[in-house]
Amino acid sequence: MLSERLQEELKANPGSHPFDEILYCNIGNPQSLGQQPITFFREVLALCDHPAITGADAIERAWQILDQIPGRATGAYSHSQGIKGLRDTIAAGIEARDRYPADPNDIFLTNGASPAVHMMMQLLISSEKDGILCPIPQYPLYSASIALHGGTLVPYFLDEASGWGLETSELKKQLEDAKSKGINVRALVVINPGNPTGQVLAEDNQRQIVDFCKQEGLVLLADEVYQQNVYVPDKEFHSFKKVSRSMGYGEQDISLVSFQSVSKGYYGECGKRGGYMEVTGISPEVREQVYKMASVNLCSNISGQILASLVMSPPKVGDESYEMYLAEKDGILSSLARRAKALEEALNSLEGVTCNRAEGAMYLFPCITLPQNAIKAAEAATTAPDAFYCRRLLNATGIVVVPGSGFGQVPGTWHFRCTILPQEDKIPAIVTRLTDFHKSFMDEFRD
Amino acid sequence: MLSERLQEELKANPGSHPFDEILYCNIGNPQSLGQQPITFFREVLALCDHPAITGADAIERAWQILDQIPGRATGAYSHSQGIKGLRDTIAAGIEARDRYPADPNDIFLTNGASPAVHMMMQLLISSEKDGILCPIPQYPLYSASIALHGGTLVPYFLDEASGWGLETSELKKQLEDAKSKGINVRALVVINPGNPTGQVLAEDNQRQIVDFCKQEGLVLLADEVYQQNVYVPDKEFHSFKKVSRSMGYGEQDISLVSFQSVSKGYYGECGKRGGYMEVTGISPEVREQVYKMASVNLCSNISGQILASLVMSPPKVGDESYEMYLAEKDGILSSLARRAKALEEALNSLEGVTCNRAEGAMYLFPCITLPQNAIKAAEAATTAPDAFYCRRLLNATGIVVVPGSGFGQVPGTWHFRCTILPQEDKIPAIVTRLTDFHKSFMDEFRD
Repeated sequence: MLSERLQEELKANPGSHPFDEILYCNIGNPQSLGQQPITFFREVLALCDHPAITGADAIERAWQILDQIPGRATGAYSHSQGIKGLRDTIAAGIEARDRYPADPNDIFLTNGASPAVHMMMQLLISSEKDGILCPIPQYPLYSASIALHGGTLVPYFLDEASGWGLETSELKKQLEDAKSKGINVRALVVINPGNPTGQVLAEDNQRQIVDFCKQEGLVLLADEVYQQNVYVPDKEFHSFKKVSRSMGYGEQDISLVSFQSVSKGYYGECGKRGGYMEVTGISPEVREQVYKMASVNLCSNISGQILASLVMSPPKVGDESYEMYLAEKDGILSSLARRAKALEEALNSLEGVTCNRAEGAMYLFPCITLPQNAIKAAEAATTAPDAFYCRRLLNATGIVVVPGSGFGQVPGTWHFRCTILPQEDKIPAIVTRLTDFHKSFMDEFRD
Repeated sequence: MLSERLQEELKANPGSHPFDEILYCNIGNPQSLGQQPITFFREVLALCDHPAITGADAIERAWQILDQIPGRATGAYSHSQGIKGLRDTIAAGIEARDRYPADPNDIFLTNGASPAVHMMMQLLISSEKDGILCPIPQYPLYSASIALHGGTLVPYFLDEASGWGLETSELKKQLEDAKSKGINVRALVVINPGNPTGQVLAEDNQRQIVDFCKQEGLVLLADEVYQQNVYVPDKEFHSFKKVSRSMGYGEQDISLVSFQSVSKGYYGECGKRGGYMEVTGISPEVREQVYKMASVNLCSNISGQILASLVMSPPKVGDESYEMYLAEKDGILSSLARRAKALEEALNSLEGVTCNRAEGAMYLFPCITLPQNAIKAAEAATTAPDAFYCRRLLNATGIVVVPGSGFGQVPGTWHFRCTILPQEDKIPAIVTRLTDFHKSFMDEFRD
């Protein structure tokens, strides 16, 4: 843009133009031009976020961030990709995580991960002939977004018997099947750690997936919002970007989008609607398209942008806030790990129920073998058998879980998704009530 | 939902179920279940919003708001329409403004007004046969959103000679013309106060528009984001809902959507991405559709929601913060009025330039009669004549304005949009530079 170029020229070379500053009379963005926020409004917002500030490094970090925002205006529209300084921080955080370079220009900050997913679907889908490979079971954002944009969901099934493993032979089979129906498969969605399935992919398996996408020319859409949620010592999160780069694949080899959110991890700031996608291996023309889509809603909310930079750059050893931060983080993650274990064990002790480990994410997805009598009763009530079970559970115990049919499952199998999020002191009650309910349910319907 | 019903039954009638609380194991929403936010993250966010809190009533208001949020969790996903307590506050604010009832269930909180506009377009448009009547000139969000959803923009021209008046004869003519082409016109967009045109509609004119929509069965999409930006003593903002109700039209007579934003007014909090739409006169089925669309992205950001409640319920006479609030508000609005006047007078003093008053909003939209030589020079540079003028202005003076062609204009006329937002001490420099530039431009190209 001409005004940006002139701005830079004036900065680099004062006196190079017949004016000494650019006067922006083009956009209705008051605080970018020095209008001060209404004090009362900001006081209330700050108090709602946090009632008291003690950490000196928090104050320092806030000033650092404010200095990265043009005019320190947190109330101004930002660059549609997000504030450049925050994208620098995020790129540095990705580099520290992966030990491979990250470019701030590849980062698009969004109101949570969902709008980023919608943007990619909008870009990839132009008709029902465009297909997207999605895991079954899957977080229904993907099916909803594909439907919204008029594309075709090409399902691939995760293998419950191998801990919700992802077999490339299954990917290949479903891809060929879709091709034979005239579907142009554009991309592969992988959720790692898995939602609703809770598995953490082995690095080896990730390499196979990367190779599959490279060979088939698919965009790899990596939902990595649970990257901080790993609960078992034998598994570790590896980003698909790190795995691809470690295989020697660069920008020209594979198109890769990684989604991250402030809503998950140990932070769990769902209400702040912050997130980003890192888009690599796409052409300048496609990037321009992504940018245009980002511009339609002007920018994502600045608090969410700031929070996205914080989760990718938390306090470090030696910082005043580090010990408290670490205690909070470890407290949350170790408690989640204990809750996952307790619920998994309880579920596996139930008649006809098997449940894989929650290695990561926030969910257990047990398989329930329902008696024929229960299936018949569900049919009589014109509801799916798993929904029938979940409704009875809720009515009897007050426990709310989600039927597997909302996520997709192998036909004839029945599941539900149970989060590990109720506070730890509630877990014993959940275990007891669930166990008692299940026993009486089976007694009522046992064949 | 069953769990909500059970929750209410437990509250109304403890002991009515074999459990004393609902245990939510269904959604990955940690802070809704008591997980505490990471202190450092919240400290930084609060400090970025506001470095120091002094107002006792701000503290009180923050607690009031926190008490309206289930579990005081500003970091949890909210109801997809927005937090109920905040919608109550907004509905009360609308009632106080209009003196007609408002229903919190009609309010949908969104990340700024833009996503609300997109939601309505998605709802109204299912093919290119669906048309939306839009003003020319218009804020290009509307043309972009209609294009995005595959509909047809049916233009109606605002009458520059009568201060950008809106003639229902023009609406009627364009509607009939569209009908004759097989377009099913679904809705009418009115921006009041106007963007980019700055007019404030007379109440009389609004009544004609309401009658037109009622007669033709059109949804009235009222962009009222500049409702606080009125600068002339002879004009006043009236919401279309108030006007409709004052004519005796209720829910069954007219479908009406009012868009509001925290980005405009005296508050100008663009970066917070807060806003809402009030949707009245639609069927329960259509409301359900709107709710589904809102659910796809879970909820809008909570800070934006809080801010939307604050702008519709600012401090009142007697509150500790009232005097400061009023001084800030009046300071901003009276300064904007002076800036509008100074720029309008400067523009009208230029050769071949006429400029209507900025009665409201944040813009002036002067008409420039360009010499034939300038038009030829623009053609030679393969650019629109108004874009040519604006580019020369920027290169010569550093002043950035937007060519009229970005908003639409009567063919053969040329305009630009100039905001009134540069800080007041910059206005004399803008006037001088613009005047000098225009003189030399005319000297260079005069026929």
